Amino acid sequence: MKTIGYAAHSSDAHMVPYHFERRNLRDNDVAIEILYSGVCHSDLHTVNGDWGDQPYPLVPGHEIVGKVIEVGADVKNYEVGQHVAVGCMVDSCQSCDQCDHGEEQYCRNGMTPTYGAPDRISGEITQGGYSKHIVVREEFVLQVPESLDLARTAPILCAGITTFSPLRTWGVKAGSRVGVIGLGGLGHMAVKLAVAMGAEVTVLSRSNSKEETAKALGAKRILASTDENAMKQAGSSFDLIIDTVPVKHDVDVYMPLLDIDGTLAIVGQVGPMEDFMTVPLVMGRRRVAGSLIGGIKETQEVLDFCAEHDIHPECKMIKADEVNDAFASLAKGDVAHRYVIDMASLSV
Amino acid sequence: MKTIGYAAHSSDAHMVPYHFERRNLRDNDVAIEILYSGVCHSDLHTVNGDWGDQPYPLVPGHEIVGKVIEVGADVKNYEVGQHVAVGCMVDSCQSCDQCDHGEEQYCRNGMTPTYGAPDRISGEITQGGYSKHIVVREEFVLQVPESLDLARTAPILCAGITTFSPLRTWGVKAGSRVGVIGLGGLGHMAVKLAVAMGAEVTVLSRSNSKEETAKALGAKRILASTDENAMKQAGSSFDLIIDTVPVKHDVDVYMPLLDIDGTLAIVGQVGPMEDFMTVPLVMGRRRVAGSLIGGIKETQEVLDFCAEHDIHPECKMIKADEVNDAFASLAKGDVAHRYVIDMASLSV
Repeated sequence: MKTIGYAAHSSDAHMVPYHFERRNLRDNDVAIEILYSGVCHSDLHTVNGDWGDQPYPLVPGHEIVGKVIEVGADVKNYEVGQHVAVGCMVDSCQSCDQCDHGEEQYCRNGMTPTYGAPDRISGEITQGGYSKHIVVREEFVLQVPESLDLARTAPILCAGITTFSPLRTWGVKAGSRVGVIGLGGLGHMAVKLAVAMGAEVTVLSRSNSKEETAKALGAKRILASTDENAMKQAGSSFDLIIDTVPVKHDVDVYMPLLDIDGTLAIVGQVGPMEDFMTVPLVMGRRRVAGSLIGGIKETQEVLDFCAEHDIHPECKMIKADEVNDAFASLAKGDVAHRYVIDMASLSV
Repeated sequence: MKTIGYAAHSSDAHMVPYHFERRNLRDNDVAIEILYSGVCHSDLHTVNGDWGDQPYPLVPGHEIVGKVIEVGADVKNYEVGQHVAVGCMVDSCQSCDQCDHGEEQYCRNGMTPTYGAPDRISGEITQGGYSKHIVVREEFVLQVPESLDLARTAPILCAGITTFSPLRTWGVKAGSRVGVIGLGGLGHMAVKLAVAMGAEVTVLSRSNSKEETAKALGAKRILASTDENAMKQAGSSFDLIIDTVPVKHDVDVYMPLLDIDGTLAIVGQVGPMEDFMTVPLVMGRRRVAGSLIGGIKETQEVLDFCAEHDIHPECKMIKADEVNDAFASLAKGDVAHRYVIDMASLSV
């Protein structure tokens, strides 16, 4: 299938229109016309080569919403015309213990990311959602509940699941005291999801300048890390802090905010941590943990949860040819919403 | 009560004999003649001022075994002649949630360490176990099970509980895959305790030079962190790693050894961590946690557990006037046993 996308051709180049082929359908494949594609900070990291060399030309994008246009002979759960979604993975071994219990993101044999990795069968490099079409095996296709607004659903596929999964892992429930560091694509979803779980949510920020935004998202308050008195008063008062900051940063300032047995869950930064003191860990049995997206089952759960609680990411719709500007904006930081490409702006 | 101990008079001085008074018994106090006192690496840190200024003269020691010589009017559970023990704490607020559920080490109002802290009532500075007598409120006195060899029991009070508690917290049971970094006072107890819980224990060391010692303690094998192939093969194969190294060190080399959801529990080092990569945390939902000794209830449990499983720390008996040499030996590292002061060598 012929399609078109926006591809980077090197780590220092902008993305440009790119004509390429999607594979012919295998029996368990679903072909999707992409309607919306979220722009994630990790797309920027990957395209820039921050996480290693990439197989250019590379079409990024792993927050994908579209409609089914064709299904393979053995596909059971999808039919033409249905609204569906694809997230950060398009395949895994499907036979290890992690895949067996629905955590394909930790597949023992390595899951196949939506773009930039060899397909498990053909070896072709996968290409992502900044494109008009995608072909994905059925097991990695999600159902989009009817009540979700399609145009504002895509970011649930990465920003949503990446914050939903640690909220579930660390047992957030009514009354849980949750902090969220950073108010970008991930952070703002963390706030909405935790609030919907009944948690008392505090946004942790350098200053109080985003107080209005934080409260509009449902947070109870904002806590400025530069306000020493307020930080001291907030000591030992959080069960879980979701740290969405995507660049190297100091966590020493946040650790004492955790209560005993509290967890700081890193979901944004993949790289070296700034060195930090073990004192708050030892003195309060606190933990620093990481978390990677979520499994397919849990990704369906977050879509259903968002539908049930009428949660939509804050989206700013852009045309395909504005994606380089979106990257530039993300690189500057302080974007409290998600750019979403309206694929109607792109023609094969 | 007049007594004698070994006290440091400044951060750069050796300990010398020191005559001082123990308080008169309060109604809930137990007076103990100390028979044995373990020498912990944290005594060395404290006396050296590594953890802040100290109120010299200071008598260290928080691994205490002795016999009751007098009890206050309201003491219910102890009588003269009974063998008892005292660990790292001698008081706490007894009214916060942490004290309520038996985790006095995390007392909201700060527990009172066995030495170097103001007594909650009189304000006098507490003095530790390198002495002939001690007076402790009943709630912080432990029972020594009859089957334990008194001369080899003291290190259970810190090295034992400090490793027992994280083994319990992170659910070690038959078949658990446990790694232990460091084979000193804490490390060798971690091995014995984990083995007794039915875990498959691996000692993690810079080289294989301690293989015999590790196996004699019950470890299944030793894994040299300098053996790149062996380390690679051991990737994702541990549920829990107990990190007993008491000085700043690199953990990057150990993190990938943890399985998904595995925990590296820091119990030795209190200070700055070397910076480390978040990659293994995020990619495998791994955790770095700390743990501080254990509560009084759990300390009694580890004493009972050691009695039940015939576990004794590896002890090297010394006379009181050899304690400075013991410190010098600890400072050099590589001591796979615990020095224990035989208090019969000290007279009032």
